[in-house]
Amino acid sequence: MARRHETVSFLSDYGTADEFVGVVKSVVRSIAPQALVIDVTHELPPHDIRAGSLALARSVQYLAPGVVLAVVDPGVGTGRRAVAVEVGDGGEAVFVGPDNGLLAGAVAMTGGATRAVELTNREYHLEAPGPTFAGRDVFGPVAAHLCNGVELADLGQAVDPLGLMPGILPLSRDEAGGVAAEVLWVDRYGNAQLNVDPADIAPWGDRVVIRWGGQERIAKRAVTYGDIGPGEVALVVDSYGLVSIAADRGSAAEQLKLQPATAVRLEPPDR
Amino acid sequence: MARRHETVSFLSDYGTADEFVGVVKSVVRSIAPQALVIDVTHELPPHDIRAGSLALARSVQYLAPGVVLAVVDPGVGTGRRAVAVEVGDGGEAVFVGPDNGLLAGAVAMTGGATRAVELTNREYHLEAPGPTFAGRDVFGPVAAHLCNGVELADLGQAVDPLGLMPGILPLSRDEAGGVAAEVLWVDRYGNAQLNVDPADIAPWGDRVVIRWGGQERIAKRAVTYGDIGPGEVALVVDSYGLVSIAADRGSAAEQLKLQPATAVRLEPPDR
Amino acid sequence: MARRHETVSFLSDYGTADEFVGVVKSVVRSIAPQALVIDVTHELPPHDIRAGSLALARSVQYLAPGVVLAVVDPGVGTGRRAVAVEVGDGGEAVFVGPDNGLLAGAVAMTGGATRAVELTNREYHLEAPGPTFAGRDVFGPVAAHLCNGVELADLGQAVDPLGLMPGILPLSRDEAGGVAAEVLWVDRYGNAQLNVDPADIAPWGDRVVIRWGGQERIAKRAVTYGDIGPGEVALVVDSYGLVSIAADRGSAAEQLKLQPATAVRLEPPDR
Repeated sequence: MARRHETVSFLSDYGTADEFVGVVKSVVRSIAPQALVIDVTHELPPHDIRAGSLALARSVQYLAPGVVLAVVDPGVGTGRRAVAVEVGDGGEAVFVGPDNGLLAGAVAMTGGATRAVELTNREYHLEAPGPTFAGRDVFGPVAAHLCNGVELADLGQAVDPLGLMPGILPLSRDEAGGVAAEVLWVDRYGNAQLNVDPADIAPWGDRVVIRWGGQERIAKRAVTYGDIGPGEVALVVDSYGLVSIAADRGSAAEQLKLQPATAVRLEPPDR
Repeated sequence: MARRHETVSFLSDYGTADEFVGVVKSVVRSIAPQALVIDVTHELPPHDIRAGSLALARSVQYLAPGVVLAVVDPGVGTGRRAVAVEVGDGGEAVFVGPDNGLLAGAVAMTGGATRAVELTNREYHLEAPGPTFAGRDVFGPVAAHLCNGVELADLGQAVDPLGLMPGILPLSRDEAGGVAAEVLWVDRYGNAQLNVDPADIAPWGDRVVIRWGGQERIAKRAVTYGDIGPGEVALVVDSYGLVSIAADRGSAAEQLKLQPATAVRLEPPDR
Repeated sequence: MARRHETVSFLSDYGTADEFVGVVKSVVRSIAPQALVIDVTHELPPHDIRAGSLALARSVQYLAPGVVLAVVDPGVGTGRRAVAVEVGDGGEAVFVGPDNGLLAGAVAMTGGATRAVELTNREYHLEAPGPTFAGRDVFGPVAAHLCNGVELADLGQAVDPLGLMPGILPLSRDEAGGVAAEVLWVDRYGNAQLNVDPADIAPWGDRVVIRWGGQERIAKRAVTYGDIGPGEVALVVDSYGLVSIAADRGSAAEQLKLQPATAVRLEPPDR
């Protein structure tokens, strides 16, 4: 029997208005009562693989050892594969979800896939009264059986980890006189995280020009949100180590009309 | 002592903006620390017994064995009874909640009530600083005491299960040339579930006319959401085995202005 | 070794759209797998210390024994101290959070602080990739270590409990011919809780004049929400023992445009 797991970390776009999350957790509880499900988030925008992939990548190094159950699955019922992907030498984590790029970033950040299977063995699924509700009928049960020590290889046919769908990781580009970036994420407080490493703009001094959608704004550098004065916009290094656009106790994203995937150009001020 | 339970499945209209859910779970934790509360959903529309009843009916077959705590309770503090209802021969599940029809569908789907009591024994309630917050002061504590093995009969006076408030289950009707149905539920993705069994419309071929609110639309049949083309509306059999109206990666409910309880008529196309 | 704890009650303004809450719970799970986190609420308005303080005060007497983790922290990264505050003689509860008034009301309601420390010992924190995400890097880990039996004194330097930031508790005032009050809280159902003890208005009979924002309305007294007739506004004693303004199955706050902190004057009717 394989290693047993105690924790299922669960991320989805199911929302909490419906009972989807509760049903999946109930299924896990019924099959593996000793395992605890930790909700990472379920309020990802519906069908937004990019947002799910980024949220998972931000979280993954903090998750408890065990199974990661991630479901953002616009292609449910079509050709996309359902997979389980083991990472790390001792199999200390297994990702379960659709093979649509959602898992790729997090898998890479935890050392890369050592083994993967397509979830073809229906013995470990629930029988659906209609078409499959994949979280309830496939992914949830499989996550629970993994907690119970079921071997990865028993869940279905092996697939080459190199054949898994890659993630789409938006990279910023150094351009003449600036950095072409984009907004990765807008958090609850309205901070707009960019795909920019602080080192890329470190030499520019304490003011930076932000250009987006035909507009421009001068931002100061700030170490903490508390350093931002009334009416100011600032670039901060956020708690993930990336550059974020922030405003004084208000939402920078709202003030500047920034959304995930908004193209943003950073430039040093005219000298 | 009665059977002990390890899981409380908790559904309510409390929302999560306030601390109501957290307080009820804290009360359960204080009384029965060994029990785990699984949240089914708490975002039911306030006071919407119909929505709660349907969500519970959709979920119930997947819930972990134990206590089901369901609170949508517009009549709190009035004459409605607080009850605990045991289902199944061995008492493997007990429903706790108001006797207002909320529990009826789920109780019926799990085999029907074998015993029921009104929660009149205040020894198993908390004392309220003001009028009763029933989830915190009555239903939550009772659910926890059931987990601890308290006998159903100790919770209050027996009531005839046949005297419990029936649920209102909207049934579709076969009419001349069509089926008169209604929307049971609009889920997060905008799919509008109808109270229609696929068998009722199976003979009609691959196009179906949808009529509602003076409008009409031709829907195709689709097996999965991925089969729906741009701009198309489709009838799918959903993961609960009922007919749903769906749109291509968008919200059918929003596009067609469908809401729970909207009357919908399905017809075969003119031949 | 100090007393161990089994439960972390967790309240924040993190929301659930992002993964903040899930990450903090994952950190706790990784450090103290035997502890269970109970979510009190995470939907406090961003940075609203007053709302957080009141929600915590309403909840605290119902929380399971253990650690209370409370994070509403607009001053993160500035001079505000991170603290752990022990209450009760045997240390049956420890509050962990920012020293900004958030904890004060709840600490007072549970007997007052017996000991407090500033969380200066970084041995019990996580190392942050950027600036601190205090819930993830400081408060969460500290809560988990407390569950594991780490001594309060090991978490950092002792601080005088009397030097902790006091809470701002809005008090109502008896004025000539009335009571000057304010809205403490608007709940999901639209009930507007006032900082008024029922005893203060008990002698006034069964009608009370409500004045706010230049408007006035006659409210009846009601014992339960079910007693309120169509179109009526009522004063009820709520389940926390305070006077609330309620409407018939609708939102009193919406109808009367009441918000937290709205000034409200109650008067007996002209005689």
